[in-house]
Amino acid sequence: MAEPPAPDGAAPGPDVASLIRAKRDGQRLAGGDIRRLMAAYTRGGVPDEQMAALLMAIYFRGLDRAELRAWTAAMVESGGRLDLAGVPAPTVDKHSTGGVGDKVSLILAPLVASCGAAVPQLSGRGLGHTGGTLDKLESVPGWRATLSPGEMRSLLGRVGCVICAAGPGLAPADRRLYALRDVTGTVESIPLIASSIMSKKIAEGTAALVLDVKVGNGAFMRDLGDARLLAQTMVTLGAEHGVRTSALLTRMDTPLGYAAGNAVEVEEAVATLRGGGPPDLVAVTLALAEEMLWLAGLGPEPGGAGAPGGAGPDSPRDSPAGPAAALADGRAYERYRAMITAQGGDPDAPLPRAAYATAVPAAASGWLRRLDALAVGRAAWLLGAGRARKEDSVSATAGVVCLAKPGDRVKERQPLLELRSDEPARFGPAVEALAGALEIGPQPPSGQPLVIERITP
Amino acid sequence: MAEPPAPDGAAPGPDVASLIRAKRDGQRLAGGDIRRLMAAYTRGGVPDEQMAALLMAIYFRGLDRAELRAWTAAMVESGGRLDLAGVPAPTVDKHSTGGVGDKVSLILAPLVASCGAAVPQLSGRGLGHTGGTLDKLESVPGWRATLSPGEMRSLLGRVGCVICAAGPGLAPADRRLYALRDVTGTVESIPLIASSIMSKKIAEGTAALVLDVKVGNGAFMRDLGDARLLAQTMVTLGAEHGVRTSALLTRMDTPLGYAAGNAVEVEEAVATLRGGGPPDLVAVTLALAEEMLWLAGLGPEPGGAGAPGGAGPDSPRDSPAGPAAALADGRAYERYRAMITAQGGDPDAPLPRAAYATAVPAAASGWLRRLDALAVGRAAWLLGAGRARKEDSVSATAGVVCLAKPGDRVKERQPLLELRSDEPARFGPAVEALAGALEIGPQPPSGQPLVIERITP
Repeated sequence: MAEPPAPDGAAPGPDVASLIRAKRDGQRLAGGDIRRLMAAYTRGGVPDEQMAALLMAIYFRGLDRAELRAWTAAMVESGGRLDLAGVPAPTVDKHSTGGVGDKVSLILAPLVASCGAAVPQLSGRGLGHTGGTLDKLESVPGWRATLSPGEMRSLLGRVGCVICAAGPGLAPADRRLYALRDVTGTVESIPLIASSIMSKKIAEGTAALVLDVKVGNGAFMRDLGDARLLAQTMVTLGAEHGVRTSALLTRMDTPLGYAAGNAVEVEEAVATLRGGGPPDLVAVTLALAEEMLWLAGLGPEPGGAGAPGGAGPDSPRDSPAGPAAALADGRAYERYRAMITAQGGDPDAPLPRAAYATAVPAAASGWLRRLDALAVGRAAWLLGAGRARKEDSVSATAGVVCLAKPGDRVKERQPLLELRSDEPARFGPAVEALAGALEIGPQPPSGQPLVIERITP
Repeated sequence: MAEPPAPDGAAPGPDVASLIRAKRDGQRLAGGDIRRLMAAYTRGGVPDEQMAALLMAIYFRGLDRAELRAWTAAMVESGGRLDLAGVPAPTVDKHSTGGVGDKVSLILAPLVASCGAAVPQLSGRGLGHTGGTLDKLESVPGWRATLSPGEMRSLLGRVGCVICAAGPGLAPADRRLYALRDVTGTVESIPLIASSIMSKKIAEGTAALVLDVKVGNGAFMRDLGDARLLAQTMVTLGAEHGVRTSALLTRMDTPLGYAAGNAVEVEEAVATLRGGGPPDLVAVTLALAEEMLWLAGLGPEPGGAGAPGGAGPDSPRDSPAGPAAALADGRAYERYRAMITAQGGDPDAPLPRAAYATAVPAAASGWLRRLDALAVGRAAWLLGAGRARKEDSVSATAGVVCLAKPGDRVKERQPLLELRSDEPARFGPAVEALAGALEIGPQPPSGQPLVIERITP
């Protein structure tokens, strides 16, 4: 349909309506227009209804590489950028798109730090069925998530890793845009997801970044093609903004490890840092650690030329300097204790435990073939581990502990899941949410690689 | 891409974000959801950013027939509906999608009333390059656009026609939605245009309606296919809501008649009502009048079985009771005078005239092949006849008078357009806006029918 003839010069300032129409009609937005738009939006000069219409037009039309680069840069420029140049070790961070039982950050940051890198991990809180790293660590008595940029830099130098909340000054446009996308049906857009994640990581000042893009029914991305495209988009965006970035696509059909919740996940992370832990959690953590050390210039390329025999990402090579050794010999755990202590926490204090527990038993004997990540996440959320609204608080003790995982043989009536909460009234809805989440059959499930694919610049 | 798993029951009230996602993903919205949404929006319970995102999703996904019916009904139900049941004559109205020099309403309402129908014409003001009927009539000294519903009904009984402003109680959702669409790039959507127009006409209470859907470079719809689809959509919507509706697609590449402005258009309308007037204006007016009389049960179907020889819409059949006779014998003009008088106007008072005029001469001798409607409309707007913002006032005297029309032979330096304004500084930009608007060549232009197509239920 033709553009309606508009009188010339009717609208002063950045003509947002024209930009919306241009994007709607599939035209490219110029970098300067994107920068002016984002600057005006950040200072409140563009109403949310115009931005919402533009976001929906972007949902349908996308952003090409040049537009996305400018859009992301404009989001970074909406606030300050941390200066980590004074940190002595090479900086490298990790971002996960979120999964059930994903406590990897708690292990990975001290592990990679113990291998010589500095990990400036700015994290978020959980919303919906996937938990937040800060929520999990706040179950450690005394630990605090809020640090000033100066404290953060100092801890990076002294301890080598820090996990804390992003301050309000980093990519403030993303904060407003994310809240707007949440209520306007514009969350599920690859360029908008990529720019939201990458603008915060670029502003954080890290020199390198590994992305853990989860794929599966418990993940934000259920489709492998979408996940691959998102990963490629972010890897490119990182390179364009001077952040060495690579990505692993990892499977999220069943919870990672056994625990989903807050204190229960910290417990499992500590067990892993002490050299134990569930094999799937260890495997994903080591694969990400090797990737980070490679990006930081502290290790060989995973599965690359330096690895004769071509060990895949699921069978991490061991070396005395590698991350597997740092887990086994206690160096990673030591670094974790230092990090917790530096942020006011007591690593020796007992973690809070739920007052009540109930079990979900096996309905039959056989092989556990499926344990649905989304259902477990929802059950943990219903038990109180997650929040429905940003303002809500979470329970430190609530959660789900898996007593078996797909591939295990189980017997009828054997407990398969343990539900924990301080409020027994929550068990009913949580058990209901788990209906159909478990599948037991006469054959073992076919094994699928945890790390599906590696995407490098 | 998969929907992100959302926690159950997180949002209370009408879940607008879910409706937006459903429309975005191409799903049908249920009638009840549309009604609840519109009711909540009208009472301020849905923020503009959510409605803006939904409008953009509708721009891309459309509304199917059932959705559009419910959407339009919900807009009607957002306010009151006029009750014209007490009006003794059959009611029939006309709506034009807007063109340059389109003063048809001023002639048509009294003309059709003089043939026995009652015409309850609720009109708007102009925005941009097309004028508004109320703006034009306000150049008549004393005339007032605002009537109460009671006054309106009384005039319909006494005079048979009324042209007045729609009160704030009719389809108030449309008022808010239109303002929102204007700034969010969601004006150009056929279901949104159709529901906006038809909700007001349905709320107005008319029993029948003719739509003049203009096509061409001076019209809102430049493409014939779009115009046809819009017309068909509105004809169907009318039938579904008990309003007998038909449409004519008419050409709008060159101004209708000679005058574009306010007082200058009233002058031309009066000349036409007195039996003169430009042939194109007369032809379109008579075609619309015949259509209205047919819908009102007061005349034969245009071009239908009752017209032996199959006279097309461009050659209206004459009969002693028909509209051509009512124009010729002064009945229509009498009715116009009564309508103006009843609304406080003095039909004998001289119309205001501009203090300054300037001419645009022919650059060559030959046939005038093209006189661009959009350029003339913009020039009239720049001279002061139209407004850039709703709050602006308009000049009664400003405008453009065409001294020749396509198909006329012209001589070099002969004045082709007369520009009028009380502010000589406005001539420069207006003349500039007319650059390229006139085309003179050695061959006459090929004639094209004014009425392109007739669309009936």
